[in-house]
Amino acid sequence: MIIPYRRKVQYYENDSMGVVYHANYIHWFEEARVDYMEQLGFGYEKSVAAGIDIILAGLTCEFKSMASFGETVIIHMSISSINAVRMTVEYRVVDAEDGKLRMTGETRHCFFHRQKGRPVSLQKELPELYDLLFKQNGR
Amino acid sequence: MIIPYRRKVQYYENDSMGVVYHANYIHWFEEARVDYMEQLGFGYEKSVAAGIDIILAGLTCEFKSMASFGETVIIHMSISSINAVRMTVEYRVVDAEDGKLRMTGETRHCFFHRQKGRPVSLQKELPELYDLLFKQNGR
Amino acid sequence: MIIPYRRKVQYYENDSMGVVYHANYIHWFEEARVDYMEQLGFGYEKSVAAGIDIILAGLTCEFKSMASFGETVIIHMSISSINAVRMTVEYRVVDAEDGKLRMTGETRHCFFHRQKGRPVSLQKELPELYDLLFKQNGR
Amino acid sequence: MIIPYRRKVQYYENDSMGVVYHANYIHWFEEARVDYMEQLGFGYEKSVAAGIDIILAGLTCEFKSMASFGETVIIHMSISSINAVRMTVEYRVVDAEDGKLRMTGETRHCFFHRQKGRPVSLQKELPELYDLLFKQNGR
Repeated sequence: MIIPYRRKVQYYENDSMGVVYHANYIHWFEEARVDYMEQLGFGYEKSVAAGIDIILAGLTCEFKSMASFGETVIIHMSISSINAVRMTVEYRVVDAEDGKLRMTGETRHCFFHRQKGRPVSLQKELPELYDLLFKQNGR
Repeated sequence: MIIPYRRKVQYYENDSMGVVYHANYIHWFEEARVDYMEQLGFGYEKSVAAGIDIILAGLTCEFKSMASFGETVIIHMSISSINAVRMTVEYRVVDAEDGKLRMTGETRHCFFHRQKGRPVSLQKELPELYDLLFKQNGR
Repeated sequence: MIIPYRRKVQYYENDSMGVVYHANYIHWFEEARVDYMEQLGFGYEKSVAAGIDIILAGLTCEFKSMASFGETVIIHMSISSINAVRMTVEYRVVDAEDGKLRMTGETRHCFFHRQKGRPVSLQKELPELYDLLFKQNGR
Repeated sequence: MIIPYRRKVQYYENDSMGVVYHANYIHWFEEARVDYMEQLGFGYEKSVAAGIDIILAGLTCEFKSMASFGETVIIHMSISSINAVRMTVEYRVVDAEDGKLRMTGETRHCFFHRQKGRPVSLQKELPELYDLLFKQNGR
């Protein structure tokens, strides 16, 4: 069982409205993915060291309410689809205290071979990681 | 006629793959909107000073190819829909030299009254700005 | 006893050299200060809510070795001097695993009254916080 | 003659006090250095492509007054000392309109060979760049 990623909102993440600047949520998505992979037993740094970057092909966010410094958020994350060459991840960011929905998001990824300079099959390049991610599909 | 926003890619915008980190493109969208409003003759700082923030309700990006430090990009921006309470903006980021498409994006906005703490009608609150934006609709 | 702040290095904090971009360490200093105040029992958000910002008057960093994504760092922090209107904080960032020194830093602060728009005496404005910080002086 | 670097303050650079977040000034220093090297005729991307990064060994800032979104700043930059292995750069950030001093800073650099993984002599590795920088020393 994956434990959702928990995170304090930092002061420097607020903008001049006194709430989290919208682009900073994208950082939290990445932190959640990194934490998720670590919990799966295959840290992202291992993938990077093996020459495979899980890069962004697309991104969608819907902002619902405003988080701000002093709060803690929980980022619920799930893999909504995956095949050998593509993965889609979904996120729900909620306030840790009252569960209020802050935003939802989706990131669309491909698996990029840094040396070859092009997307590759994760199933072929890192089958162990692929299997770990695949088993989480739809959970 | 609005001149598309032109911008050098900064060194600190690159990530460890040696290309622009995906969340940084969102900053460029904002820079393009700010530049656009300045060209329209109603700078965003004027809107903020009047208590109206043009906040993000949603965001979509599609990444096509990778920009990196040393390059210059052009951000083509247009208002694809607007009414009294909502505005959608579209972007195409291209390399300034060869025109290669780097990414496309869309931001969905509402007009937020900071004092009242809720979305308002831009048409009522800042009719001058509303009219300027409205005339650009679909261009 | 204050527990030093512990923190994972994030992927998005790396620059194109594959190590933490230098300006990002400044964020960690702030995170350490925020964590420190929370441990003291007077969270920074409480100070902000009371209208007092602990702003930066100066900053010094010495970079010794390079942290990067996948590592965890510990930020040792101490108040090296404080009076009613000024505070200096020192930092040592080390690798959590082998204790290797990554960098040292110092931030010089004053206490800023947002409404009045000028530095004030913390001792007068927030005596409880001042006393808590003062007792840590030199530890 | 080098023209000082001119730059608009961006909305996303403001923090929740409505002024530029202190760590963002460090980005401006880098932009100024990049612009400076471009004006010298040896862009930083050329140095990076040749395997030499001009990395930070140290950093000092003094904040004098607060810049914020809507303003334009000018970053005056000069090389205060340079030898084969080290360079120190000084900065004065002023408001473009009234010349008011926003902050001063200093960055201390060495020349890092990415392949060799250690500091090197710029004079040996990139004599053309070294000579261009050396001639600016103290100007």
